Amino acid sequence: MDIKKPYLLFLGDAHDQLAAKVAIGIKQWHPEYCVGQYRMADCHADCGLPDLDIPAERAAGAQTLVIGVANRGGIISQQWIAILREALESGMDLAAGLHNKLADVPELRELAAKLGRSLFDVRHPTETYPVANGRKRSGKRLLPVGTDCSCGKMYTALAIEKEILASGVKATFRATGQTGILISGAGVSIDAVVSDFIAGAVEVLAPANDADHWDVIEGQGSLFHPSFAGVTTGIIHGAQPDALVLCHEPTRKTMRGVDYPIPDLAACMALNLSMARLTNPDARFVGISVNTSALDEDAALSLLATIEAEFGLPAVDPVRHGVGRIVEALASL
Amino acid sequence: MDIKKPYLLFLGDAHDQLAAKVAIGIKQWHPEYCVGQYRMADCHADCGLPDLDIPAERAAGAQTLVIGVANRGGIISQQWIAILREALESGMDLAAGLHNKLADVPELRELAAKLGRSLFDVRHPTETYPVANGRKRSGKRLLPVGTDCSCGKMYTALAIEKEILASGVKATFRATGQTGILISGAGVSIDAVVSDFIAGAVEVLAPANDADHWDVIEGQGSLFHPSFAGVTTGIIHGAQPDALVLCHEPTRKTMRGVDYPIPDLAACMALNLSMARLTNPDARFVGISVNTSALDEDAALSLLATIEAEFGLPAVDPVRHGVGRIVEALASL
Repeated sequence: MDIKKPYLLFLGDAHDQLAAKVAIGIKQWHPEYCVGQYRMADCHADCGLPDLDIPAERAAGAQTLVIGVANRGGIISQQWIAILREALESGMDLAAGLHNKLADVPELRELAAKLGRSLFDVRHPTETYPVANGRKRSGKRLLPVGTDCSCGKMYTALAIEKEILASGVKATFRATGQTGILISGAGVSIDAVVSDFIAGAVEVLAPANDADHWDVIEGQGSLFHPSFAGVTTGIIHGAQPDALVLCHEPTRKTMRGVDYPIPDLAACMALNLSMARLTNPDARFVGISVNTSALDEDAALSLLATIEAEFGLPAVDPVRHGVGRIVEALASL
Repeated sequence: MDIKKPYLLFLGDAHDQLAAKVAIGIKQWHPEYCVGQYRMADCHADCGLPDLDIPAERAAGAQTLVIGVANRGGIISQQWIAILREALESGMDLAAGLHNKLADVPELRELAAKLGRSLFDVRHPTETYPVANGRKRSGKRLLPVGTDCSCGKMYTALAIEKEILASGVKATFRATGQTGILISGAGVSIDAVVSDFIAGAVEVLAPANDADHWDVIEGQGSLFHPSFAGVTTGIIHGAQPDALVLCHEPTRKTMRGVDYPIPDLAACMALNLSMARLTNPDARFVGISVNTSALDEDAALSLLATIEAEFGLPAVDPVRHGVGRIVEALASL
């Protein structure tokens, strides 16, 4: 899955900024991929990009219209079809990370086939993957793991990739979910892979590389989440991580979507380490990434200091303070 | 997936008994499901059932022809097609657990559609499953887990189901792999389910039940297998096991298919227990099932005594000594 850049970000009829979080993520992490945004009359989101119509986007070089808005149920709105058709006709491919597939909309599928355009439904893997072999690969790998789902693993990974690159070291973010795939333009939606091939898909996603190259693999789920820990386990084994980063949201009381408690940090680190050491006996934690957005600055600093003292590892909020201190810790690996 | 019984076991051109192990397993565990076997001229396997042709099978009541032979690559042999067609025409459904699907053979698919027969490709789930909710269900559940793949989990589960039933207690074997599905006539091939739904599929497979009913769920893989531990994790969480049984093959040096060591029994039990207690805090091991087929009787008894002394749990070879002592331990749960 390799999506042509640059992108036109389609915000459609997003009713607020949150509904356009995919588009906002792409703009935040890769503004250089984006030539403009397309907003319908009733759109209430804004990525801060030029508002261009399809001919102007195409003239500005856009290769792919990316649907950067999520609506309830992840469906492709009937309201969008005319614009998506116009984009195909102008020469663009289409990409989306919705539950429903672009390729399942007959008029888009037929028009794309007729014109020779590609439809990227990034949530739905089209490749088949091998069973994992567990063999050691060259290169270094970092994996964020979490106390819960949706607690900052993708953000942490993207921030670490950016910081490693800024330090002059080779690094590649490896997306395992639809938003990460649209942000980076490549990856595998691991939770949609057949379960026998979870670890195998990650081995393909983060293959052997230069000895001084870091793959920064997007983590998914949590070993303590009763719905998704199988996905998490397979990603950990396939990643063979040299470095783990624990991601945590400190104000959450229960796991996302279920009535289960958030695990204790020490227990969470111990279980993740035990799992990771199966395929990489040298795996270790190099830092803790805490989403302190629900705390004020004093409370955040105090919490980070407490965590840092307890575990003897850099504890940072990647949004407030960056991940520089975690990336410094990689130099010794 | 609910396959109509009784069965005609199709042994095809099996070149030895091992190639017909699915048919042999069905005959062993459920002889009452089987009215006969069909062997081609060059078949070298034998289930010890009457050799009947299709009209005689049908006359004896066979509802489904089950392909009980595996050939290299799991394909449907061109040599079999005429017989499979004859079975469809006589009024039977077809069932198989091969990699290749009956439904992907155009002449079988079209004939079945025309005649209103069902084709069961048990390795390929056709249902969709929900994300697991992790909520406690009524009824009791037992799950065999393993130091490795293919070390006796299905056999142990079937033996335990049979022993519980023989003691007058309600029990149901819940198949999670193709052989178990064909043996029991129902189940979900979990390793073929999309990874987001592993635990959810097991919640559906082993739903709430009477408080004194045991679901005996077939385990898969091993938490220590670098290719398949994600599947194992999801099954453990979805099963919410009250009782775990550790399955082990003591002469194996490396994990099946990969160059990884077999884990230490104590470490394996600790990690499985830690995983199981997420969704059932009362989970405990009730026994150890050891495949001693590669040892002589004295060596087997000596090994079982050593394991039993170390862990304080019944350690049995289910083939040599039965699982009665493990089932006795369930009475207190």
